[in-house]
Amino acid sequence: MPAIEETRRDALRTLLAEAEIDALLVTDLLNVRYLTGFTGSNAALLVDARDEAGAEDRTLLCTDGRYLTQSAEQVPDLAVEIDRSSALRLATLAQDAGLRRLGFESQVVTVDQYSALSAHLSDIELRRAGGLVERLREVKDEHEIALLRDACRAADEALAALLAEGGIRRGRTELEVARRLEWLMLEHGADGISFETIVAAGANSAVPHHRPTDAVLATGDFVKLDFGALVRGYHSDMTRTVVLGEPSAWQQEIYDLVARAQAAGRVALSPGAAVADVDAAARAVIAEAGYEELFLHGLGHGVGLQIHEAPGIGANATGTLSSGATVTVEPGVYFAGRGGVRIEDTLVVREPGPELLTLTTKDLVVI
Amino acid sequence: MPAIEETRRDALRTLLAEAEIDALLVTDLLNVRYLTGFTGSNAALLVDARDEAGAEDRTLLCTDGRYLTQSAEQVPDLAVEIDRSSALRLATLAQDAGLRRLGFESQVVTVDQYSALSAHLSDIELRRAGGLVERLREVKDEHEIALLRDACRAADEALAALLAEGGIRRGRTELEVARRLEWLMLEHGADGISFETIVAAGANSAVPHHRPTDAVLATGDFVKLDFGALVRGYHSDMTRTVVLGEPSAWQQEIYDLVARAQAAGRVALSPGAAVADVDAAARAVIAEAGYEELFLHGLGHGVGLQIHEAPGIGANATGTLSSGATVTVEPGVYFAGRGGVRIEDTLVVREPGPELLTLTTKDLVVI
Repeated sequence: MPAIEETRRDALRTLLAEAEIDALLVTDLLNVRYLTGFTGSNAALLVDARDEAGAEDRTLLCTDGRYLTQSAEQVPDLAVEIDRSSALRLATLAQDAGLRRLGFESQVVTVDQYSALSAHLSDIELRRAGGLVERLREVKDEHEIALLRDACRAADEALAALLAEGGIRRGRTELEVARRLEWLMLEHGADGISFETIVAAGANSAVPHHRPTDAVLATGDFVKLDFGALVRGYHSDMTRTVVLGEPSAWQQEIYDLVARAQAAGRVALSPGAAVADVDAAARAVIAEAGYEELFLHGLGHGVGLQIHEAPGIGANATGTLSSGATVTVEPGVYFAGRGGVRIEDTLVVREPGPELLTLTTKDLVVI
Repeated sequence: MPAIEETRRDALRTLLAEAEIDALLVTDLLNVRYLTGFTGSNAALLVDARDEAGAEDRTLLCTDGRYLTQSAEQVPDLAVEIDRSSALRLATLAQDAGLRRLGFESQVVTVDQYSALSAHLSDIELRRAGGLVERLREVKDEHEIALLRDACRAADEALAALLAEGGIRRGRTELEVARRLEWLMLEHGADGISFETIVAAGANSAVPHHRPTDAVLATGDFVKLDFGALVRGYHSDMTRTVVLGEPSAWQQEIYDLVARAQAAGRVALSPGAAVADVDAAARAVIAEAGYEELFLHGLGHGVGLQIHEAPGIGANATGTLSSGATVTVEPGVYFAGRGGVRIEDTLVVREPGPELLTLTTKDLVVI
């Protein structure tokens, strides 16, 4: 059985043939990682798409001397070239090998980098070929879904441990809670954190992207926690909002409302669904309650090697969901100065229904 | 007294006038932060350079609706435009305002983004103006140096606390030491960590960029720790190598050698010095001992809002050091399969001599 990365390179070659490109110069490091498994901080990859039989043998990874050992270990199945100026070196080799049309990743290559490439090449045509690997990455394979599942599990377990030890309590600061939660993710198998943890208490919970402060948790507060674990490059993303003390009427009302909107969004996830319709399904629930203008952001986003990637799920987003896309569903309602609620899951779009990766309860937790 | 950010914008305007540009469209987020104090994840800044008197009033920050409150708080002195497509919006406004030559940051604007800008603009000339803000950022002002000092202090204090509690000990794993050290940095005032902490024990210490593993620390090991604290966006960077048990002859020899090379590099830091000469000063010490080929990387790099920024200090690097540049000096000698030593400080280039920001002892610590 070929390595999963070889399967991905083969899928890319099909796209390159469609685009009439002889080879793609991959310079986005996450794309290099996706296609080879290499995790170094300097690399480029030349994916040859001519003549299927020898294409793998002519596909080259280039990195610098710091990664001599690591590249050999992580990428045993490809030839590795050691040169500090990776992209330039591979483009020159492509030209020397007689390739005529070299695709480049126009979504990451800067104007300065493009100028340097152009200046070095004379006998090869550079073609804009942005977003091809991203198109593949939008549909996760089972290898990736397993890693995303592990990342989501680390986050679930960390939150369960935090709740079990009484870690969300009156008198603690947002920052203390955030740090403890991050620590627990590492203890439960995360390699790192997905993004800066949000812990937002009381009025701060009404700020969608609040950074944790020395604000002290108190009775009557909503406490919103938005956090994720990183496992072998894959990100989880989950938000839960708990309440300190018995919820007041308005708190119960908006919690229930956001939970219903979130459920409507999850139900709308299916292969082929227009992303704008998924957003609309959740937004309609909030609009019916008269709070549409308090739902300040899109419904969700793809998640994988990046914390935010395609597909975006929002009112003005275009396109449809693919089977295997992994996305968040995260409606929120925010009353400035009082507090807000967001509930967010990470799910895989599948038939017959989405697979939920973040398993923590969405019932209102009262502390 | 004007805000420090206004002083920086004024300095940038001088560069724009020299480049005969009416305004710069700043899209690098760190550059936006440097010039305005804004820390959101979506922003662009239009720095108008025409007619000094009104230039500040015509300078505009653009971000999206999520950052309505934050942008008003962080940037009270500039007009803020709220629009999701920040760069495009500001370029259109620049055109509508009758500007003729709009500079853009060609070192970060991608080929796709440039195409989108070009397609939207008809009456304004787009000019490549890469690296202008970076040129300013290479020389730190006292506000920045104070933050770098705080970041280095957090790292110093964390290592002192780790040593005091016996945190580097036989039986612990590299990962456990790394996590504890990161925790202690947060406890000592860091907002976050600068980069993934390196803890490398025994033979692993010979790998320049080793990622910590479950490898257990044992008597006879060198333990190399390369780590940094983040304070309000500014990075510290320090490496120390300790030894578990009395050092053997070869360990003492290479430790002393690297320490002498590092001292030579520090002494060579002065305003106006060619960076290649600084590298050579340290490299010569290692070469005299016959180990030149075991010093696998450049001597150092600038550090500030990025962990690696200009100036690079290496054998093939060009340019000279400016007063106020903040750089690392970090020679290393690595015996594959046995162990290695690196010693690294962060320093400010100044007259009459560099200011050392990382104050932890460089005497060999024996545990």
